Amino acid sequence: MGGVAVTDRKEFRDLASPAEAHDVVASLDVAPEPETVPLEECRGRVLAERVDAAIDVPGFDRASMDGYAVRARDTFGASERDPVVLPLTGVVHAGEEPAVDVSEGECVEISTGAVMPDGADAVVPVERTAEREEGDAIAFEAAVAPGDSVMAAGADVAAGERALGPGTELTPREIGLLSALGVDAVPVKGIPTVGVISTGDELVRPGGDLDHRAGQIHDVNSYAIAAAIEEAGGETVLYPHAGDDYEEMERQLRAAADECDLVLTSGSTSASAVDIVYRVVEERGELLLHGVAIKPGKPMLVGRLADAAYVGLPGYPVSALTIFRTFVAPAIRDAAGKPEPERATVEGRMATDERYGRGRTRLVPVGLVADETGDLVVYPVDKGSGATTSLVEADGVVEMDADTDYFAAGASVTVELFSPDVRPPSVLCIGEDDPAFARALDGVRNPRYLAEGTRSGFRRLRDGLPDVVVASGPGAPSEETTTLASWTREWGLVVPEGNPDGIEGLDDLLDADLTFVNRTTASGLRATLDAALDETDGGSERIRGYERTVRAHESPARRVRAGDADVGLGLRASAAKLDLGFVPLGEERVRVLANPERVAKAGVGELERALDGIAGVVTDLPGYDA
Amino acid sequence: MGGVAVTDRKEFRDLASPAEAHDVVASLDVAPEPETVPLEECRGRVLAERVDAAIDVPGFDRASMDGYAVRARDTFGASERDPVVLPLTGVVHAGEEPAVDVSEGECVEISTGAVMPDGADAVVPVERTAEREEGDAIAFEAAVAPGDSVMAAGADVAAGERALGPGTELTPREIGLLSALGVDAVPVKGIPTVGVISTGDELVRPGGDLDHRAGQIHDVNSYAIAAAIEEAGGETVLYPHAGDDYEEMERQLRAAADECDLVLTSGSTSASAVDIVYRVVEERGELLLHGVAIKPGKPMLVGRLADAAYVGLPGYPVSALTIFRTFVAPAIRDAAGKPEPERATVEGRMATDERYGRGRTRLVPVGLVADETGDLVVYPVDKGSGATTSLVEADGVVEMDADTDYFAAGASVTVELFSPDVRPPSVLCIGEDDPAFARALDGVRNPRYLAEGTRSGFRRLRDGLPDVVVASGPGAPSEETTTLASWTREWGLVVPEGNPDGIEGLDDLLDADLTFVNRTTASGLRATLDAALDETDGGSERIRGYERTVRAHESPARRVRAGDADVGLGLRASAAKLDLGFVPLGEERVRVLANPERVAKAGVGELERALDGIAGVVTDLPGYDA
Repeated sequence: MGGVAVTDRKEFRDLASPAEAHDVVASLDVAPEPETVPLEECRGRVLAERVDAAIDVPGFDRASMDGYAVRARDTFGASERDPVVLPLTGVVHAGEEPAVDVSEGECVEISTGAVMPDGADAVVPVERTAEREEGDAIAFEAAVAPGDSVMAAGADVAAGERALGPGTELTPREIGLLSALGVDAVPVKGIPTVGVISTGDELVRPGGDLDHRAGQIHDVNSYAIAAAIEEAGGETVLYPHAGDDYEEMERQLRAAADECDLVLTSGSTSASAVDIVYRVVEERGELLLHGVAIKPGKPMLVGRLADAAYVGLPGYPVSALTIFRTFVAPAIRDAAGKPEPERATVEGRMATDERYGRGRTRLVPVGLVADETGDLVVYPVDKGSGATTSLVEADGVVEMDADTDYFAAGASVTVELFSPDVRPPSVLCIGEDDPAFARALDGVRNPRYLAEGTRSGFRRLRDGLPDVVVASGPGAPSEETTTLASWTREWGLVVPEGNPDGIEGLDDLLDADLTFVNRTTASGLRATLDAALDETDGGSERIRGYERTVRAHESPARRVRAGDADVGLGLRASAAKLDLGFVPLGEERVRVLANPERVAKAGVGELERALDGIAGVVTDLPGYDA
Repeated sequence: MGGVAVTDRKEFRDLASPAEAHDVVASLDVAPEPETVPLEECRGRVLAERVDAAIDVPGFDRASMDGYAVRARDTFGASERDPVVLPLTGVVHAGEEPAVDVSEGECVEISTGAVMPDGADAVVPVERTAEREEGDAIAFEAAVAPGDSVMAAGADVAAGERALGPGTELTPREIGLLSALGVDAVPVKGIPTVGVISTGDELVRPGGDLDHRAGQIHDVNSYAIAAAIEEAGGETVLYPHAGDDYEEMERQLRAAADECDLVLTSGSTSASAVDIVYRVVEERGELLLHGVAIKPGKPMLVGRLADAAYVGLPGYPVSALTIFRTFVAPAIRDAAGKPEPERATVEGRMATDERYGRGRTRLVPVGLVADETGDLVVYPVDKGSGATTSLVEADGVVEMDADTDYFAAGASVTVELFSPDVRPPSVLCIGEDDPAFARALDGVRNPRYLAEGTRSGFRRLRDGLPDVVVASGPGAPSEETTTLASWTREWGLVVPEGNPDGIEGLDDLLDADLTFVNRTTASGLRATLDAALDETDGGSERIRGYERTVRAHESPARRVRAGDADVGLGLRASAAKLDLGFVPLGEERVRVLANPERVAKAGVGELERALDGIAGVVTDLPGYDA
């Protein structure tokens, strides 16, 4: 029996504090050597050293208007009534060497940007002149002073001046200045190379087929962490998936240590993978930290591996990304010379009371919604640490002290956004999972739709959370709402193609040798079924599998298609989509209900306009009627 | 005579309003077709269509803790005092198919992530168990309910659910979710291809040598606009520099129209280049707008060129980038599906009265500095529209209505930042151009140093603008200041190598056949010279070229090196750097003076620490003494 793997595991004792973990990661040097890149590739890079101007800009006295180059004193006293007339002796265009000087009492036509001819000290703009004698002379209607409409050599930038300092991030503006200085190769900080090694026999890279029976899942961390590395200013090297083949993992760790400035593993905090990391790190480097007192992310490893830094991230995606963002991203940004993102925190108030265990600092993933005044309402997103939907349903984290166990509803909290670009959803919709509504949302920018069921929508509405509740079934909210739209959908029993069991209605399920699969109690469709069953004799207790519930609108139908059940609760639209049989039991109304205080929100308005087109959305959803 | 080019030019009559210009540019469709990209390349891209989940995540009932899979009812009544002991009949690891079922009264060891074996409906975490009988049986010290520590199939994402909507920007979080769904190719909006054509005979790409006599300057717009296009979410195609070769320009316009979604020209608003654009646009498309009532940027062109959109930008870099940012970037972002950057405006108060001409909307480039309370002080940066330093010395623009001509000092204004990432400088230093100070700034993150001369520093200090003034020469500020550091620098006359004219002092310049080159009157070094000249007989009026002034500390020495002058005012350090001769005339003290109200600013503190190391900075600056 295999009890050993469970009981002999290394324990994460003597956890480091988050502050210690920050310090240890900061002590790792992950900065590569500076490099020189062509000007056209330097956007977003960071100057490694000061750039002083090597040339004057402009390099010559330059006309800054179209007009006539003159000796300023020759125009003194000129006015519209009493113009000074000077013979025109030549022309200088931009980009050519003047072929003529300006002597006393003469003028030369000149274009913007052209070299001032010798002798001239000012330009009279063409607007203040008139031609005379078929263009052979010019009448000047205003006096100018020496230097007028001339940019002197070096007036913009003088050779020897400090132009840009080390640490400057190169945006189009700095690139413009470097261009003006003639710089075509720019000394910049290197981009840290970060190796990503994913482990775990159960992981399959996206695109590959999963064997569910064997417990396979897609590898989430590799691409998500790779993208997060690039967002922080690093370059990712993605190593081939190592599975739990320890020789392969060891080979990759050694290769990554040679090729990268920083090596990350994820999911390798399981006991036996830790053994490999231990062995390689102890052989070729040192382990500096093993475990940090933070949740999620306790099993974090930090060390050195030959010349590279090493961090072991937790396996769960939300934990891995949170730990990456909290501890690793700052080190990458620092190495790349990128400043910490600013304004990445917002204040909000908790929607509900929340209670947590004490003892470790917690980074609680939260979602945000703006109320009618624009203030932010904060709600925890806790779908279990293995859930990937938390990734996109949360906007940031609230840090809870190790000795805090309670946030009261209405308490003010600081939310560290996942990035400064994160914005609260334009409209937060909670309720029934409905495919027509899901499609209508395509017309709304940045909506959020938590399809947790009608009952959950009503409950959260009492907490003041959603802008909009999507409801179906017999239930009604206890709060007043404004109906934005409604439509009907045909519901019934989804059965295999051809209805092999000849089911005609609910009565055929009672005491039958048929396996049923139901929706969860939060679902409005489930409530519709329950109401129908109240009219049968004995009802739900006589249906085998009645208590077996699955979450989303299509889930029961998919169980039927997979042969896991004989009958499922569902929609005609789902049966049609999955080529299954359907036994209609009725129509139920789907209602989109807004919190009346929030109807003025731009996102609610946008949703309302999108719902105006619901008739077009439902045309290819059989059983729908707008 | 060439008066024709000036007088026959096309006039920009009937200027469009800025709002009309926005509408016309928005009406151009620059969005390319959507495309499908591999998951590992989709960061920062924008979904072109909704992604619904095609699979359940997880695809099976999954243990979410390390422990033992049981039938929950077998643990009912268990406690630490009175544990339930069950025989251990097998083990299931993550990534393998269970080889064993769980029958009544049995348990199976299970790892986090493993498939729940048939028969089991809950997991008891290992922490709540103890081993018995050499691992052949497990004592359960707590009861669990069905479903405890199990993530049901589809609990995270159910097949058929809406996962991500069109228009979603793909960050590491969305990439994580797509990975979980097994998506390895992502339908995203196309990246608009933007062609950049630069014209003008006088332009030389950075890296090339300039012929100053012929009025050549470096091409600033091509790389700056290219970078701005990429910042907005487009891809740049940089066409070879067309000069003013009209056939070449026409060929490139036609090629770009075929190859790009949008074609930009810059500097092509000169009369004859406009003719070419007119001809090509009229032949193959249409001109929609010619001139917009905004300053800078009036000569903007908008049209269609075959299937591509066309915008002609002004030639001056600040104007070109401002017009790009104001009118063109929004169209590119929209085509790429990128949201408008948020929080890109800040409020501040004007440092000084500012008066402008009426009649056109003005976008006035401004710099920012935080005062002691963190409030922002705003000052115009107006170095002439041809100046490239305005690019980096300004932080944003203030829009002035066409009928406003005056901002009073202290007036509140809204500054549209050049990008949301722009931050005010950590410390704003104005004053004398000094190479030691310029080097010391390398130790400060995000400083700004306007080397406009000591007198300008004092004047601006009266306006409450700089945090720090760099001063040299006999002058003193009228305000109280706190001295952060000071050092001396040797000054004198810079002469050609070997001092061919045998100059020994100022007296040798008086009435001599020598050309002198001076510093501007704002310079403290110039004031030091003037004080010395007061002790000569007749002084400045007897020096030929005394009125000929250049701007920066090294500028006179460079004129001497170029053979443009026989003697220049300068520093021993400059003479040594440029291998020139030097006639010492004295030492002057450079003082770094802080506004006492601003000494608590973080940037001032950082500067003070950097100045502590000034002795190390000046060791290789001859004539300096810290």
